[in-house]
Amino acid sequence: MQDFNFYTPTQVVFGKKGEDKVGELVKALNCKKVLVHFGGNSAKKSGLLDRVFDSLTQSGIDYVSLGGVVPNPRLSKVYEGIDLCKKENVDFILAIGGGSVIDSAKAIGYGMANDCDVWDFYMKKAIPTGCLPIGTILTLSAAGSEMSNSSVITNEEGWLKRGCNSDYCRPKFAIMNPELTYTLPPYQTASGSTDILMHTMERYFTQGGTMELTDGISEALMRTVINNSKILMKDPTNYEARAEVMWAGSLSHNGLTGCGSIGDWACHQLEHELGGMFDVAHGAGLAAVWGSWARYVYKANVARFAQFAVNVLGVPNDFSDQEKTALAGIEAMEAYYKSIDMPISIKELGVELNDDQIKELAYKCSFQNTRTVGGVKALNTEDMIEIYKMAR
Amino acid sequence: MQDFNFYTPTQVVFGKKGEDKVGELVKALNCKKVLVHFGGNSAKKSGLLDRVFDSLTQSGIDYVSLGGVVPNPRLSKVYEGIDLCKKENVDFILAIGGGSVIDSAKAIGYGMANDCDVWDFYMKKAIPTGCLPIGTILTLSAAGSEMSNSSVITNEEGWLKRGCNSDYCRPKFAIMNPELTYTLPPYQTASGSTDILMHTMERYFTQGGTMELTDGISEALMRTVINNSKILMKDPTNYEARAEVMWAGSLSHNGLTGCGSIGDWACHQLEHELGGMFDVAHGAGLAAVWGSWARYVYKANVARFAQFAVNVLGVPNDFSDQEKTALAGIEAMEAYYKSIDMPISIKELGVELNDDQIKELAYKCSFQNTRTVGGVKALNTEDMIEIYKMAR
Repeated sequence: MQDFNFYTPTQVVFGKKGEDKVGELVKALNCKKVLVHFGGNSAKKSGLLDRVFDSLTQSGIDYVSLGGVVPNPRLSKVYEGIDLCKKENVDFILAIGGGSVIDSAKAIGYGMANDCDVWDFYMKKAIPTGCLPIGTILTLSAAGSEMSNSSVITNEEGWLKRGCNSDYCRPKFAIMNPELTYTLPPYQTASGSTDILMHTMERYFTQGGTMELTDGISEALMRTVINNSKILMKDPTNYEARAEVMWAGSLSHNGLTGCGSIGDWACHQLEHELGGMFDVAHGAGLAAVWGSWARYVYKANVARFAQFAVNVLGVPNDFSDQEKTALAGIEAMEAYYKSIDMPISIKELGVELNDDQIKELAYKCSFQNTRTVGGVKALNTEDMIEIYKMAR
Repeated sequence: MQDFNFYTPTQVVFGKKGEDKVGELVKALNCKKVLVHFGGNSAKKSGLLDRVFDSLTQSGIDYVSLGGVVPNPRLSKVYEGIDLCKKENVDFILAIGGGSVIDSAKAIGYGMANDCDVWDFYMKKAIPTGCLPIGTILTLSAAGSEMSNSSVITNEEGWLKRGCNSDYCRPKFAIMNPELTYTLPPYQTASGSTDILMHTMERYFTQGGTMELTDGISEALMRTVINNSKILMKDPTNYEARAEVMWAGSLSHNGLTGCGSIGDWACHQLEHELGGMFDVAHGAGLAAVWGSWARYVYKANVARFAQFAVNVLGVPNDFSDQEKTALAGIEAMEAYYKSIDMPISIKELGVELNDDQIKELAYKCSFQNTRTVGGVKALNTEDMIEIYKMAR
């Protein structure tokens, strides 16, 4: 077991009509001028944006808005947000959306509270020393950014997708109304569920010790997501299933499922390069590489993959052949991905990788051959090339 | 499923030597003068208190100290603490101990941040509007007060044991070093483990809906505590087992295991009267009444008791007779209590109740016949009398 810190200060307001409380929540934080940050037109069309504006106005809170955040959110939009916030003396950012919008809000918040170029934080050239306070209204269960300390931004110059973690950016509140996710297309629901699962799987697959309690929580969370995402493929307005997946999304990435363990995170790193270069949906990208990663590394910790197979996927344990159980678990996970129409190869993402592109992806992912990724098995550039080849 | 709020701002520092960081943690909060609050002499004898003083001094933090907090912490000590804090201009309270010391610190904190008599908050005559910041160094896994919003104090006048809940009192940080619990006597370890279990069981046994994810987390937590408390009876310096129980103690009462459900809490109310009148160890008191409570109410939700039996205690499911499964679960739980030397009757607490005392307990517990307690089944004064009689 590893020592750990656990810090999740975000106030969660979970349930129906939570968005109507946004004005009073901002007011309680003594903030005066809000940037309402969002993505496409769905928040407008559904009337959500108007309800939020009403709630803010009723609490005497002034606001400006900035939409147009895209998946794999762009640095140029972050700069636009920082300029707007400075011009308008914004002291609070309200993100309405999923991980992309929240991550963009966090980057803008960094830009407002620090003097240097915000991209320096993502390139690890500098460390943030503050962040403007952020609140969220979640409309997509996936990234867990509503409680997490992380933000991932894509720089269009070079299409680099990079993350920055710090406790400063953890949102002050997160409004989670499962009904706001009813209209998500099945592909986004499935991709989001995959992202949620992977946030726990990345922490679960570890080489060192972990905690029995953390394992039990993680396994319960993964079973819950698998079960309820399948329900949502057939019944997208099932409140209970939407709620289970939404709450799992937050707990999966707020730190809880990593207490006492080190984690792996190789799949996230491998996918970040794919997402930066080809703009694929993050969860789908993770599903596309996971099986190949798992088959490449499982021998480094067969017991762990067997435990995953039995406790998460209900694979019968072959007591005489643990490796067989482990491999059956990888197959069962891929069968689950297929059942929710997620890809299990990069080709299924609509991306045909040639050898040169694979080398470029691996070169970027290894930070020009200067790092390895992964905890179950440390992967160097050659290993990454092998996994991309297996997965393409 | 119920709507819920979830708010756990406490920064957890978990692992070996965490107590050496206390000075820097207080300093980061910009506090200058600390009340070091503790119980008996064990913190002194073990050298922990001196290490804490050193850490504070090294960070340039001034302090005064007040020991002598007893189990079922007393209101008179709270008043003493408030007087001392006012005299010494204390702006931070550091509780070193378990739930009793932390609850006492919270009450002192309320007294410092509000003008009225602090006991009014516990008698529900007033609502606190603030609390002095609190930090904790945990030396006993039980009450979960290190992350919770609750505080329970006993007023020697009338021996009333009453609780007050508010988010203001949630500690700023909790230092959790499992090694600090190595020297606990087996009875305290067992009583603490029971308290931890009961904090989740009180939330788990519900009449309305809950969440699949919350159930899974709760069941994992209960299995973990049962498993590791049994290990600790034989091997009290087992770091992993101490750590599992310690982390479970915090998660069991920070709100996580109640997300989406209403909860019961009858056993806590029944025990509070016993604790107030006879000064029994809280966890042991809970164990003494639980089985009788369970047999009295299980028919109101047989499915829930059967799920508990199978998923927590590993009782084989009798698919043809769910009630049989439910009752086997109650028996298995009592067998577990016996295995860690916890009482399953009030007599085993060393308390011989006569009928008049039972009536007095029930009368107090029902707030003079003005309320019922319990969620699985609402219990009035007559029900309480029956349960006390079954349990004596």
